[in-house]
Amino acid sequence: MSDIRNLVLDIGKRAKKASKLMAKASTEKKNKALVILSDMLEAEKKYIQEENKKDLELAEKRGLSSAKIDRLTLSDKVIDSMRKGCMEVAQLPDPVGAIETMWKRPNGLLVGKMRIPLGVIGMIYESRPNVTIDAGILCVKASNAVILRGGSEAFYSNQVLAKLFSKALSEAGLPEDAVQLIPTTDRAAVSEMLKLEEYIDVIIPRGGEGLIRAVVDGAKMPVLKHYKGVCHIYVDEDVDIDEAVEIIYNAKVQRPGVCNALECLLVHEKIASSLLPKVGEKLGGAGVLFKADKKSFKYLEKWAEEAKEEDFGYEFLELKMAVKVVANQDEAQEHISLYGSNHTEAILTNNHQRAMRFLKEVDASLVLVNASTRFNDGGELGLGAEIGISTSKLHAYGPMGVKELTSTKFVAFGEGQIRT
Amino acid sequence: MSDIRNLVLDIGKRAKKASKLMAKASTEKKNKALVILSDMLEAEKKYIQEENKKDLELAEKRGLSSAKIDRLTLSDKVIDSMRKGCMEVAQLPDPVGAIETMWKRPNGLLVGKMRIPLGVIGMIYESRPNVTIDAGILCVKASNAVILRGGSEAFYSNQVLAKLFSKALSEAGLPEDAVQLIPTTDRAAVSEMLKLEEYIDVIIPRGGEGLIRAVVDGAKMPVLKHYKGVCHIYVDEDVDIDEAVEIIYNAKVQRPGVCNALECLLVHEKIASSLLPKVGEKLGGAGVLFKADKKSFKYLEKWAEEAKEEDFGYEFLELKMAVKVVANQDEAQEHISLYGSNHTEAILTNNHQRAMRFLKEVDASLVLVNASTRFNDGGELGLGAEIGISTSKLHAYGPMGVKELTSTKFVAFGEGQIRT
Repeated sequence: MSDIRNLVLDIGKRAKKASKLMAKASTEKKNKALVILSDMLEAEKKYIQEENKKDLELAEKRGLSSAKIDRLTLSDKVIDSMRKGCMEVAQLPDPVGAIETMWKRPNGLLVGKMRIPLGVIGMIYESRPNVTIDAGILCVKASNAVILRGGSEAFYSNQVLAKLFSKALSEAGLPEDAVQLIPTTDRAAVSEMLKLEEYIDVIIPRGGEGLIRAVVDGAKMPVLKHYKGVCHIYVDEDVDIDEAVEIIYNAKVQRPGVCNALECLLVHEKIASSLLPKVGEKLGGAGVLFKADKKSFKYLEKWAEEAKEEDFGYEFLELKMAVKVVANQDEAQEHISLYGSNHTEAILTNNHQRAMRFLKEVDASLVLVNASTRFNDGGELGLGAEIGISTSKLHAYGPMGVKELTSTKFVAFGEGQIRT
Repeated sequence: MSDIRNLVLDIGKRAKKASKLMAKASTEKKNKALVILSDMLEAEKKYIQEENKKDLELAEKRGLSSAKIDRLTLSDKVIDSMRKGCMEVAQLPDPVGAIETMWKRPNGLLVGKMRIPLGVIGMIYESRPNVTIDAGILCVKASNAVILRGGSEAFYSNQVLAKLFSKALSEAGLPEDAVQLIPTTDRAAVSEMLKLEEYIDVIIPRGGEGLIRAVVDGAKMPVLKHYKGVCHIYVDEDVDIDEAVEIIYNAKVQRPGVCNALECLLVHEKIASSLLPKVGEKLGGAGVLFKADKKSFKYLEKWAEEAKEEDFGYEFLELKMAVKVVANQDEAQEHISLYGSNHTEAILTNNHQRAMRFLKEVDASLVLVNASTRFNDGGELGLGAEIGISTSKLHAYGPMGVKELTSTKFVAFGEGQIRT
């Protein structure tokens, strides 16, 4: 066996052991660990930033883009936001051990489902080092152990953050191995991780489509993932035009580089002439380039290129957006079914029947009526915080918060019942 | 591309298409299909049994055991039980489209989770042909499409049952492709099925450990499975002896060949001398052979062999059972953690604290207090019917009923909300 294999196997075994202790950990200890971690992030800020500087210097040498360097930087603001995350997650209700309802069987057996941790979670993520904290705190709150594999560009930053996390766990009386970071940038470590189905219960990749496909292809255990967000808004004929323009503007412009940003606008032909010129003024004025189909082009000409087939179903992640005029809701829903990515889909309408039809029939992790696609986020939907968004249906579909990092077991209270 | 590959791919594509229609199917039509199917099973009984006879004749030629031939036989009784299944599942509530709760965000957005089908389910199972009906009706009730791959011994029986199922769907106005059977006994068809991650959302294997391991190793999509049931009962020192003997007898003897039957009895040392002789009389008298550890042997001698290490963690599936005397609950729970299979575990005790500790700490799909392990069954726990029992935690842990064949999507009602 190679050294890397032994290294990763040892981490896996220690994580499994830690996960069994975490399963019994009290809410008090888990919350205490998160509060201690928050304090440490403040007290050790200088140390953290010194280690972060090593990554930043290497990044500059390697000629990384300023956007990437920006995402790598553990500024005071980023550290504050990690601390805020710790405190917020400490205040969330502890899902573990809860039984939502118990029902009584005809023989008197009282049956329910108790929430339990998943076990060991493997996180594989790219450059942003704050994920080390943000993901770790959710896993710990749900009584799991986590094995973190961050991007090589953030190696020193991730190391110091994981070290502090283990220290905080230990000070709170919890196993320090509940949070472990793979201590090498060797890519072979990822392949070894993906083979550890005996020790890692689920893998959550976060990053570009390439990373996620590689993880899905290699993993022997289940993977919770989303590939991309190709989000649509369909504007029905019966709509408040000004409200629609505000929602479309927010969905596309507020933060264009994220997965819940709008990528394609579908407009009912009866309101194209009243809606699209206003969309053009407002979004075009903000720098949006429209990839417009033939029927919408004339209203958006000033800010548009003619759409090509490949512009539909494309995740622009910048101030570009496809636009298409449709004959009716059937055509809109067929378009979404064909080009959507099961991420976020919205209808804007005053018509109740059409709103409910869209809600029921469209297959996406979040389906909205009269609101911006930007709400597909654990915090915005009320989950507290999220570790990622799943666009596949098994186990979790949509933002994954603390609860989605748990499972349930059946429990039953008897009084001597036997089966007849 | 080979013929088999084309055949299976075509089935996959048709299933995906059918699943989209099924997602919109009304409760009324789904229930109607199940009622029609029940009627057909009665009306076509002669035809079904003629086809079944072809399988039985081949089985005899091949020299299959009488137990296997018995499991293959579609007797009047088995057909009646399939009919009963149709009617029971028709009467279950339809989970699809339900929203259990909606919460209001500070901005007024009303958020909830709506239950939706999983999509296309692949069932791979061994000889019992009634699974074709039992599994199909649950998949259809949950608005899924299903691709069935039954055992080669039941080829003719499965074909006729699937054909009738498609006809019933069609008569109820639903897509006949929602239930399809792989129409060949070629084993290459299974490998092809396991590669169709684009068309099959989840695979559920049912059968021996060998079949299940092969499916897990080959499948590109998630698998919901259980390998085996090594179920324990731990008898605490503070217990009603006679009640305990009744529960142990029921768990081991009522139906020893199933996954929720008792395989290992753990007894607190303080009650070994009062409990074990009674267990010996009752179970030994019923033909149970004990694999007894040193401390229990003297009480069970008449019906016992000395236990070997491999008798612990072993799924006997017959009238044999391991027995071990333990010093305390710690030792019992460590034994279960080491040798258990996360299936079903029970404690018998009058002590509340120890009951609750066992319930919380033991990791199994069903944990019972003062009741028989035989209750780990969808029907017995109140799910209506089950398609199998999952012993892995992702998505479902324990018996999987109609609800476990669904997922949820987030839905949100807005009034023009944008994200700030």
